[in-house]
Amino acid sequence: SKALTIDEEVAKLLELKARLGGDDGKHQFVLKTAKGTRDYNPKQMAIREKVFNTIISCFKRHGAETIDTPVFELKETLTGKYGEDSKLIYDLKDQGGELLSLRYDLTVPFARYLAMNKITNIKRYHIAKVYRRDNPAMTRGRYREFYQCVNDRRILDGMFAVCGVPDDKFRTICSTVDKLDKMPWEDVKKEMVNEKGLSEEAADQIGEYVSMQGGMDLAERLLQDQKMSQSKQACAGLSDIKLLFSYLQLFQVTDKVVFDLSLARGLDYYTGIIYEAVLSQAGVAPVSTEAQNGPPGEESVSVGSVAGGGRYDGLVGMFDPKGRKVPCVGVSIGIERIFSIMEQKAEASAEKVRTTEVQVMVASAQKNLLEERLKLVTELWNAGIKAEVMYKKNPKLLSQLQHCEESGIPLVAILGEQELKDGVVKLRVVATREEVDICRADLIEEVRRRTSDAS
Amino acid sequence: SKALTIDEEVAKLLELKARLGGDDGKHQFVLKTAKGTRDYNPKQMAIREKVFNTIISCFKRHGAETIDTPVFELKETLTGKYGEDSKLIYDLKDQGGELLSLRYDLTVPFARYLAMNKITNIKRYHIAKVYRRDNPAMTRGRYREFYQCVNDRRILDGMFAVCGVPDDKFRTICSTVDKLDKMPWEDVKKEMVNEKGLSEEAADQIGEYVSMQGGMDLAERLLQDQKMSQSKQACAGLSDIKLLFSYLQLFQVTDKVVFDLSLARGLDYYTGIIYEAVLSQAGVAPVSTEAQNGPPGEESVSVGSVAGGGRYDGLVGMFDPKGRKVPCVGVSIGIERIFSIMEQKAEASAEKVRTTEVQVMVASAQKNLLEERLKLVTELWNAGIKAEVMYKKNPKLLSQLQHCEESGIPLVAILGEQELKDGVVKLRVVATREEVDICRADLIEEVRRRTSDAS
Repeated sequence: SKALTIDEEVAKLLELKARLGGDDGKHQFVLKTAKGTRDYNPKQMAIREKVFNTIISCFKRHGAETIDTPVFELKETLTGKYGEDSKLIYDLKDQGGELLSLRYDLTVPFARYLAMNKITNIKRYHIAKVYRRDNPAMTRGRYREFYQCVNDRRILDGMFAVCGVPDDKFRTICSTVDKLDKMPWEDVKKEMVNEKGLSEEAADQIGEYVSMQGGMDLAERLLQDQKMSQSKQACAGLSDIKLLFSYLQLFQVTDKVVFDLSLARGLDYYTGIIYEAVLSQAGVAPVSTEAQNGPPGEESVSVGSVAGGGRYDGLVGMFDPKGRKVPCVGVSIGIERIFSIMEQKAEASAEKVRTTEVQVMVASAQKNLLEERLKLVTELWNAGIKAEVMYKKNPKLLSQLQHCEESGIPLVAILGEQELKDGVVKLRVVATREEVDICRADLIEEVRRRTSDAS
Repeated sequence: SKALTIDEEVAKLLELKARLGGDDGKHQFVLKTAKGTRDYNPKQMAIREKVFNTIISCFKRHGAETIDTPVFELKETLTGKYGEDSKLIYDLKDQGGELLSLRYDLTVPFARYLAMNKITNIKRYHIAKVYRRDNPAMTRGRYREFYQCVNDRRILDGMFAVCGVPDDKFRTICSTVDKLDKMPWEDVKKEMVNEKGLSEEAADQIGEYVSMQGGMDLAERLLQDQKMSQSKQACAGLSDIKLLFSYLQLFQVTDKVVFDLSLARGLDYYTGIIYEAVLSQAGVAPVSTEAQNGPPGEESVSVGSVAGGGRYDGLVGMFDPKGRKVPCVGVSIGIERIFSIMEQKAEASAEKVRTTEVQVMVASAQKNLLEERLKLVTELWNAGIKAEVMYKKNPKLLSQLQHCEESGIPLVAILGEQELKDGVVKLRVVATREEVDICRADLIEEVRRRTSDAS
């Protein structure tokens, strides 16, 4: 096609231009990352590492294994799994060979992995990036409290049925309910009636239910509800919510979890329980599970979902040639949002974020000691000490000490003619400026002793 | 264009087909990962984690910071950086918006990052996947020895000049020299003469030089070489090789490094020293640096490069509007190859690879103790102990113990009516079958004490 040929020509010309530029290239292209993506600098990475370590240690504490899958999948693996969100999938260019797409989440590749390897039993975590052609609006705020909302797709479907929603409109009405965290009920109702063709009466009945929040008692009350109890599906969901709350009591976390009938989740593949972890503004208590119903008070407006998930018992079966189902339940944690909160916290705090773990800097006050510095730093490295040396031939002592101040290195091992003659190293504590001569043979032990928490 | 329309129609039909399949979907597509990609199962991930930890701890020991960049870049960021390898870049489909490509290496995005943030001084490591439309032939073997080859692009260019290679053929002849690790000299020469149009005389002169291997003494000898010494470039490279070997002496690693004139490296952007880490077969000693010259003996055939890199002083300038250069030097480690060697080693060894770090399994021998098991495991989790519990209501003790055997869990905390009455827990050591009653209040300390290396 013509479009392709032009593209190819443009690419060739650009390449030629860049080649001609060679080492002196003074090109005028815009220096940026792709839209919707970002770099992480060392300080941001230090924070990200801390967040990851917290999450990973939680998964490990609960005995989870980890897996990894490729960043792209066959396009057909992702086809028909995401409903209205499918348009946000990044496709790779057809360069001959297979049609590929970047993964949109980790759930569908996981289901593909289970079906491919005929695994029916695994508790796994998977940390990796996913790609959506989206413009995520990153709300930043001072979040302190967090709680979880739970609901069940069967309760939603049962509710839709008893409210008079036609079967073929369940998924699309569910997508509209999902907007309740961003839109007031009036607008959600308008979308149901005007765009999705629902009767006003049905919408009003839904509106009554989705305003309900509570705990085990709400589940019990709805099991007695004249309308809701007519739906077998809803009753199955409500019984499971009751069972869940009995487990939450054993885990002593009932105060963190709210049964919320407005929670819908966007994705198509959920079949049972669904949940979201929500951050609420600093100082605002989470909605009490004791609350009977009614919309949440103005103070408790949720300002961000940082995790979400649910049960997806049908997804693996979509990949199995014989349609064999494997029940699955999981959660996805939105690292970017958590990271952005942590980053803001670090910015606000006076404490310095260290980007390296260096324990000691090998320095000298005199000239012509590069070789001696390299020999000493080699000794330290070989002993497993995290150590650094400046690469200049004759750096000034002041600039060596300044580097320690800036990057938070706690100790300096200073070499001079006298120290070399005496077989010692002058060990300086950066924070206190205290200096003490250490016998060279004892240096490694001394550094270890003084930095035992960082090593 | 017509092609695009057909693609879109096919995608729509596929999606429709998948939707109609719904939860019962019995689709007949091939269940596989994209060509050239693979999944990692928990055992493989445990090995990968070990490899990563070794590498990361080395970078941290030397005071490196880490950064991250997006998996895709603007297409023009990658254009004109890779020479003949550019055809292996994965492009994303034009779905409206920017033209994007998956990163081909981490070096070009790093240079883009430096130019964008005006950084002139950083020691960074970056662990991430890169994407090449390639069919990498993964050689697996029992590697034990490893050594590093070094050369300098200026020595190669100087050598090409004094051997009579025309200036505009330097890069393409360099690409041919790069094939010496896969092809015998005769075939390399044929490519130079027949495909690239070099004179036979020039090729023969190159052939003489590229057979040379040695250490500092070879560099000294070549500085005296009648032909080579005519090239200023070559002399600058040779002097730096000498300086490098003087540092290697201080680091006590001269026995691991060989100055090898046949090393060329594929990529265009190198401007000075280049190097590769090479694995040689088990029991075969690395080429001695004392060897004067001549091709390596038959026993020391290299079987795989696991890392490589070099100096690329021109790359950042290609991104700077004013062409300001930032000198850079780096190494890239081929994790996949190292991983494949470690995996083979693990397979050959009798030792079991643990995929979790669980310290204790909470079990019961009697029925109706699910609640008690959940309470105890919650206590352990809250104390930071890595613990697990079977999800069945009334699992058999034998199957609980079998799970421990299979997944390498060292301890079992067994609850029964009697233990609950006595306020104790029966702690069983899986390996020895020894059982001892522990006062419930002391359980956490006891588990910590017995698994102190794993916690």
